[in-house]
Amino acid sequence: MGKYIYELTMKVRDYECDLQGIVNNANYQHYIEHTRHEFLRSEGISFARLHEQGIDPVVARLTMAFKTPLRSGDEFVSKLYLRKDGLKYVFYQDIFRLPDLKPVLRSTVETVCIVGGKLGDSKELYETFSPYLDE
Amino acid sequence: MGKYIYELTMKVRDYECDLQGIVNNANYQHYIEHTRHEFLRSEGISFARLHEQGIDPVVARLTMAFKTPLRSGDEFVSKLYLRKDGLKYVFYQDIFRLPDLKPVLRSTVETVCIVGGKLGDSKELYETFSPYLDE
Amino acid sequence: MGKYIYELTMKVRDYECDLQGIVNNANYQHYIEHTRHEFLRSEGISFARLHEQGIDPVVARLTMAFKTPLRSGDEFVSKLYLRKDGLKYVFYQDIFRLPDLKPVLRSTVETVCIVGGKLGDSKELYETFSPYLDE
Amino acid sequence: MGKYIYELTMKVRDYECDLQGIVNNANYQHYIEHTRHEFLRSEGISFARLHEQGIDPVVARLTMAFKTPLRSGDEFVSKLYLRKDGLKYVFYQDIFRLPDLKPVLRSTVETVCIVGGKLGDSKELYETFSPYLDE
Repeated sequence: MGKYIYELTMKVRDYECDLQGIVNNANYQHYIEHTRHEFLRSEGISFARLHEQGIDPVVARLTMAFKTPLRSGDEFVSKLYLRKDGLKYVFYQDIFRLPDLKPVLRSTVETVCIVGGKLGDSKELYETFSPYLDE
Repeated sequence: MGKYIYELTMKVRDYECDLQGIVNNANYQHYIEHTRHEFLRSEGISFARLHEQGIDPVVARLTMAFKTPLRSGDEFVSKLYLRKDGLKYVFYQDIFRLPDLKPVLRSTVETVCIVGGKLGDSKELYETFSPYLDE
Repeated sequence: MGKYIYELTMKVRDYECDLQGIVNNANYQHYIEHTRHEFLRSEGISFARLHEQGIDPVVARLTMAFKTPLRSGDEFVSKLYLRKDGLKYVFYQDIFRLPDLKPVLRSTVETVCIVGGKLGDSKELYETFSPYLDE
Repeated sequence: MGKYIYELTMKVRDYECDLQGIVNNANYQHYIEHTRHEFLRSEGISFARLHEQGIDPVVARLTMAFKTPLRSGDEFVSKLYLRKDGLKYVFYQDIFRLPDLKPVLRSTVETVCIVGGKLGDSKELYETFSPYLDE
């Protein structure tokens, strides 16, 4: 996986395609959100449970570069790695078409933690992420 | 409005159209849900606030007959009336294309109230709906 | 699989849940549409390619009975079987939560074929479906 | 409107909110796409018709900064202006909550035109946009 620490394979669903016959861009945001949440879940962290504890990781800033559109029937792999930058966790999330691994999306997702309504930090998230953070 | 007691005008958004060039069917469920919630809101009832009080109106059964598909750029009006049937509130929700009023969707939405996790009744909802219920 | 002829396992994605904390109903329509299309694809039929040939299978009528809501993290299996009724193909599509197989959704989807803009029949679809149709 | 050349008022629909009780981020992409398409339409250009002519404006790069989340029942105004940068049209699209005009989203959307499958330019789009382009 190289620099990537987590990956998830998915398949385009036809309802995600719009009248141009390609996946509507907003769905890539869904794909990468689902990948982050599944990464958290694989580490034992449930997004829904965090919310019940008053901890809401939210996206502060998002950059997406669209390379090749996915189409009906395409399979793809969604990969991520992350960095810490002050209070922010920055996820680098890339999507590649299968089986040719053609780049589909390159994205950077800056997330912050809202704890009890204010910008904060979550010890649970930090301990989860720290093994994956580069020094 | 005839038998209808509430109506909401909307316009198709291109991302709601799929690769057939028509509105994807699941979006009609969105349209009629939004219409019900706006009807509630017009009566002073917020769906989000109900949820915070432990009251969740949910759909138990839904029937949709698709008549004419909506397309990119179409405007439409979404209308509703309701009946009480035991613990259920049954919404009759129809969508007509504008300006020709061609029928787009005829639907029946049977809703029940989950209160504290169990099937129940909400006095607030009943008092809200009762002026609109036929004897 | 019993009477079912096709099944697909999926997992709830958090963005499919709404402010009630459960999967928004419209997503069940997405789940069962995706299941039908994957069934077609497994038989060598692409929905996008049919559209390019001027053949658009569309849903004429849909009935959904919601049994137990799916929640964040739930896995589920979506199953179907079908019957022919005149020009209509009727799909019976049920969803069960995993691993306890609790019923989530029971639905009936009546589909018709629009060929060149008119109600019609598709030989390709008929030949595909006929092995699965009860006499 | 200041630097903005087009604006559209919308209202949050409950199904757009996720289990955090706020509008799911991917919906902001829907809001700004709909705003761009309605801007085009107000200039006599239909996105669906362009597609039929083999002209597909697509988003090449997108940056979104999320300021304040929208919630159930919020109304908001979505504004845009644009610049030309080589073959790219860059849309600056901001969303403000109503009635307090609190900033919700600041975004930059770099679009390119795919004509017959290749990066190109559309005379129709250029003539439409040129009155709005700063020198």
